Amino acid sequence: MPTPTPFPRNQWYVAAYTSEIGHELFARTICSEPIVFYRTEESGEVTALADRCVHRRFPLSESRLDGDRVVCGYHGFTYDRTGGCVYVPGQQRIPRTARVAAYPVVEQDSLVWIWIGDPALADAAAVPRAPWLDREGWTTVRGMEPLAARYSLLVDNLLDLSHETYLHGGYIGTPEVAETPITTEVDEEAGMVRVSRRMADAACPPFYAESTGLKDRISRWQDIEYFAPCLYQLHSRIAPVGSVPAADGSDPEGFHMEIFYAITPETETSTHDFWAVSRDFCVDDAKISEFVHQFNREVVLQDVVALDKLERVIAEEPEGVQELSINIDTGGLAARRLLKRLVEQGEKPLETAP
Amino acid sequence: MPTPTPFPRNQWYVAAYTSEIGHELFARTICSEPIVFYRTEESGEVTALADRCVHRRFPLSESRLDGDRVVCGYHGFTYDRTGGCVYVPGQQRIPRTARVAAYPVVEQDSLVWIWIGDPALADAAAVPRAPWLDREGWTTVRGMEPLAARYSLLVDNLLDLSHETYLHGGYIGTPEVAETPITTEVDEEAGMVRVSRRMADAACPPFYAESTGLKDRISRWQDIEYFAPCLYQLHSRIAPVGSVPAADGSDPEGFHMEIFYAITPETETSTHDFWAVSRDFCVDDAKISEFVHQFNREVVLQDVVALDKLERVIAEEPEGVQELSINIDTGGLAARRLLKRLVEQGEKPLETAP
Amino acid sequence: MPTPTPFPRNQWYVAAYTSEIGHELFARTICSEPIVFYRTEESGEVTALADRCVHRRFPLSESRLDGDRVVCGYHGFTYDRTGGCVYVPGQQRIPRTARVAAYPVVEQDSLVWIWIGDPALADAAAVPRAPWLDREGWTTVRGMEPLAARYSLLVDNLLDLSHETYLHGGYIGTPEVAETPITTEVDEEAGMVRVSRRMADAACPPFYAESTGLKDRISRWQDIEYFAPCLYQLHSRIAPVGSVPAADGSDPEGFHMEIFYAITPETETSTHDFWAVSRDFCVDDAKISEFVHQFNREVVLQDVVALDKLERVIAEEPEGVQELSINIDTGGLAARRLLKRLVEQGEKPLETAP
Repeated sequence: MPTPTPFPRNQWYVAAYTSEIGHELFARTICSEPIVFYRTEESGEVTALADRCVHRRFPLSESRLDGDRVVCGYHGFTYDRTGGCVYVPGQQRIPRTARVAAYPVVEQDSLVWIWIGDPALADAAAVPRAPWLDREGWTTVRGMEPLAARYSLLVDNLLDLSHETYLHGGYIGTPEVAETPITTEVDEEAGMVRVSRRMADAACPPFYAESTGLKDRISRWQDIEYFAPCLYQLHSRIAPVGSVPAADGSDPEGFHMEIFYAITPETETSTHDFWAVSRDFCVDDAKISEFVHQFNREVVLQDVVALDKLERVIAEEPEGVQELSINIDTGGLAARRLLKRLVEQGEKPLETAP
Repeated sequence: MPTPTPFPRNQWYVAAYTSEIGHELFARTICSEPIVFYRTEESGEVTALADRCVHRRFPLSESRLDGDRVVCGYHGFTYDRTGGCVYVPGQQRIPRTARVAAYPVVEQDSLVWIWIGDPALADAAAVPRAPWLDREGWTTVRGMEPLAARYSLLVDNLLDLSHETYLHGGYIGTPEVAETPITTEVDEEAGMVRVSRRMADAACPPFYAESTGLKDRISRWQDIEYFAPCLYQLHSRIAPVGSVPAADGSDPEGFHMEIFYAITPETETSTHDFWAVSRDFCVDDAKISEFVHQFNREVVLQDVVALDKLERVIAEEPEGVQELSINIDTGGLAARRLLKRLVEQGEKPLETAP
Repeated sequence: MPTPTPFPRNQWYVAAYTSEIGHELFARTICSEPIVFYRTEESGEVTALADRCVHRRFPLSESRLDGDRVVCGYHGFTYDRTGGCVYVPGQQRIPRTARVAAYPVVEQDSLVWIWIGDPALADAAAVPRAPWLDREGWTTVRGMEPLAARYSLLVDNLLDLSHETYLHGGYIGTPEVAETPITTEVDEEAGMVRVSRRMADAACPPFYAESTGLKDRISRWQDIEYFAPCLYQLHSRIAPVGSVPAADGSDPEGFHMEIFYAITPETETSTHDFWAVSRDFCVDDAKISEFVHQFNREVVLQDVVALDKLERVIAEEPEGVQELSINIDTGGLAARRLLKRLVEQGEKPLETAP
């Protein structure tokens, strides 16, 4: 099996939607770290602890809460929300090293972000923004699909939308998508890739026809912003042919959808595929929301099926099998370079520490 | 995956209950050795042969008996009860090396014990005793649960009963169990660990209240004797507070249960978990027997679920992950040292043989 | 796990029955090479291409045909029947290296043969013959069973028919089969083994009694010809005791069955087990055909069950476990030597290439 791309560890990752975590123990593995989450009764904040008791490695997520403390389900070792041990069975003295890791967590834009790497480097102000997810005047549908494939396959997939024509033909793909040239910009400083595909005169795919009512040919823009490693946003604008936003940014003829993905590695060969679609039109129409949800989930699941298959193919192949890249892969290859650099930079401080 | 503790091979292990083996071929793997058992028609003794035909490795357990001989189901190689081959197809001459291993076996205390190591070292007189299993005036319930975990996890589990409070809370655990200090003795000579937890004034857990009728606070003794590697006995005595056995050993106010485990490795990461409960009260009460059987099986299965989970956790971790041991682990750590020494001693003669 | 026998690659293998392949994409792995097959609309010929898109390794068999071209289901890379790429998305220029391997294929005797090795060495005239499969005056029943075992276990199995008595007792085996001595000839030049077992006066097994009406003792010949690595034919003749073919080859009292096997490795530890039975008597009797089909399939499945079991046994054993071979194994051992030599010879040119 070819070695999967390692994870940059000193990065913010989406761990969950805020609504997923309440006052029950909730287990999720992020970047191969098993983690137990819960929201405290006292402050309502999200706690994230290493999901293995220091005593005999029992999963704390298989245990129970006593107030805001976790009581290990095997021998009763008890931890507070900082990961410190406050009780051990059969003795008064609590060993000094009895402590599990507590991970920095930030709640923002309806997401729970987690920092897996060195806690001293975690800067809450640097958490990426995804403001459309809960912005006034917008509405959002969303989901999370488990992907049995390495996260780099999903990055590849999302950074090249020409696959829409083939994998999602009859859904969101039309011949124009594959045929329209793309422009790719890489901002090495910001760790970011922009891929734009702007179709001035294109067919309206069934998905958009159904949700917007536009039946004729359209102007269709797909502007991707990928912030390595985790956050992907596709700014989608469709409008009648010839229509452009006004100088002040207002865009009454345009229909805007913000397609959000958070690409969070679970293990080296599996991924949490968070997805959401926010829109600024028909925001109160529950039927359209239901349609967008169903429709987008089907598209995501088409990707999941294809990438799961691809992971099995790759896992069986020897290291070093060649791929053949073409123009459409410019964004994906740029993303790979960014990820590689993040890993190298992120690990360097650890390796050169005295 | 951390390397599992190896098996000491020159030891007696419980292979089965005597009632499990009749005049049909019966397959069980012991210490990674696939073995076929059957009881001969002629003498009724148990035969244990290596479960692989010498010809092309076909499992003899997938074959058939012709009288007291095993006829391989693939090409008909036929073995007598000593493992010697008495027929091969297509020729008269039987090759001198046509023989499968026959393992020493002893039936005692309703158990079939087997010796996997060097047969020359097998001493039938050294088979450990578990006399309560079929002693006059006692009654026994029992079972065997397959455990998908390395045997050392079950040894750990049984040598520290403080887990009763957490893993079996509402069953056999009460807060006193976790809080009562233990005394641990190690007899290096005998390869044995004793762990005692004596509660002078304790709550009566539901299990015992149901079976003995004692509703008030009780005196509760748990005296463990572990004979490495296979035999574990928990001598459990409960009695009204203040009651002690007489000087002559008689103990009319006490209720005695002998909780037996045989811990037999199946493979490096799976175990045959034999368990039995013998008691000296209400011995003819079938309802109580049924209750004790059901109840104890539930407790065993709680351990099985937890240890299976723990095996999966451990199997995913790199070698060398640290545990944190405290006082309650004294018995378990002593058992680990004994097992390590048995493996080293047991293998030494083989390594230094000329 | 003992290393499986490698595949000789510069050989013809049976990939399918001709009737299996139409104008839909059909995936089958041969000698660990994933391959997609289809019959062209234009010429009706069978095309065999490597089943991985050069772009991102997506399986072409999960794609669709556009006329005689394969359109990759992920990004639309399009291949013609020679494996050349004729379209890529988003650009006009097609990279020079955009090409998947096309494998030489021959249709003959109702079989599709494929050449996995160096195409320059593929000689269509050297494809082995199995003429009875569609010969005038004969009728054939057939099937293919997937075998979860290395192909060498099936070669062993078929080259020693003494197992009929034990594994297929009550079906095709009788005591005489195991007891009759065999003669074995090896033709190193032709890469071929002949094993003959001729019983002059034998019981008629139920299978033959049912299909031929012969109830008394019979003369029974089993002449095996194995052409390494793939083709196995058992020429079976039964006739009344004392009857022999005439000098001119005519044989009016004999009943002839040609039992065909093609032993095609799928992976190192799995095999496509093609089987067919052709006969020259009661050729129009559909009931007898149905009986022969059912009956032979049951026998094949008995082998499949046994060999799948054996593969699991072998996979768990360390390298170098000894087998004990006797006279009946002469043919099988000769076949192993031939296969070893084919592998060594077949790979030598590749290794010494400048």
